[in-house]
Amino acid sequence: MTTKAEPSRAKRGPYAKSADRRQAIVQAAHAVFAAQGYLGGSLQDVADRVGMSQTSLLHYFPSKRALLLAVLNWRDSITGDGHTPPDPDESFSESILRQARFNENVPGVIELYAVLCAESITDDHPGREYFSERFATLRAGYLADFTRLAEEGRLRDGVDPARAAASLIALWDGIQTQWLLDPEGIDMAACLRDYLSLIILEEPDESTLA
Amino acid sequence: MTTKAEPSRAKRGPYAKSADRRQAIVQAAHAVFAAQGYLGGSLQDVADRVGMSQTSLLHYFPSKRALLLAVLNWRDSITGDGHTPPDPDESFSESILRQARFNENVPGVIELYAVLCAESITDDHPGREYFSERFATLRAGYLADFTRLAEEGRLRDGVDPARAAASLIALWDGIQTQWLLDPEGIDMAACLRDYLSLIILEEPDESTLA
Repeated sequence: MTTKAEPSRAKRGPYAKSADRRQAIVQAAHAVFAAQGYLGGSLQDVADRVGMSQTSLLHYFPSKRALLLAVLNWRDSITGDGHTPPDPDESFSESILRQARFNENVPGVIELYAVLCAESITDDHPGREYFSERFATLRAGYLADFTRLAEEGRLRDGVDPARAAASLIALWDGIQTQWLLDPEGIDMAACLRDYLSLIILEEPDESTLA
Repeated sequence: MTTKAEPSRAKRGPYAKSADRRQAIVQAAHAVFAAQGYLGGSLQDVADRVGMSQTSLLHYFPSKRALLLAVLNWRDSITGDGHTPPDPDESFSESILRQARFNENVPGVIELYAVLCAESITDDHPGREYFSERFATLRAGYLADFTRLAEEGRLRDGVDPARAAASLIALWDGIQTQWLLDPEGIDMAACLRDYLSLIILEEPDESTLA
């Protein structure tokens, strides 16, 4: 008995099959760009990885640029936009540290982010707008968090909420790069925890309240 | 009268001329790699910029990898290794801030550094060893500085000198990337100053000493 003559298993029809194929291409591109960068990775490398011709691949994504943007959007769908909404049961610091620890399990995703982010500053890079907007959105989110903490009297005196927002993102990005080069030597979550505990004061002990 | 028949002006001899040519190639490669990354920039782009054939260029640098390492060494000769030795007239924080302000004047150098550093985490990148060693050297240098400050009682209680060393470098690298994407919105030196003033205590006021 052979399965060859069986009807196609693509019961969800051609659209679903096409969506699966797009998804496979995006995942292959993610791996290629993480390993070689966007500038160094080629559409041929991606096509080889999914076992299709470059011409077929261009049927799904008309350009390398279009493929990059699909990869970036897929990445955001896995990791979120990097800014965790406040959870009543979790403090701001806890949510950052939870995310940092999660990232340690997805080094490929971090690698892609680090390479594309730095490449985005090069001339006419298609990721430039994405990263500029991403940083602006992240800074605005953390600025709101730090402003709220300041209103609650929990930001250390003299800490500027806007610069602290930019600094937290910067520290996080920078420590990820050092961690990728030396995973044993660098404790990302501990460095973030240190910074947060420098700028955020402990919840006031209720017994000391008037 | 034509200058064509004049004797060569290379009075310093063929060696000096060759050194000049090498230097011109390194500077051209610096510009190409900063604009397109190492992965995206080609030897042909560098050759075009100095007006020589790729074959002639390979006479000076046998590979793209060799050229990259020459560019990185040249960069260090301009900016130093990023770690300023202690100057009796300048505090640790002052020397960091002086260097950060200097960097604002050489965005091309910062761009090259940011792109190559992130690219170095990709597979088999020739800059990987350079950046791994650079980070290790920088961390060791700042660790020594913070240990000295701790011995002088000038490191805030609870600050871990090794993690502070990694964090200072991370913050600096990360804020440079944000600054390159938004030079008007990001004040690199202020973010570094904020961090240093969180971990380093003011010099003790002499009048309060016993």
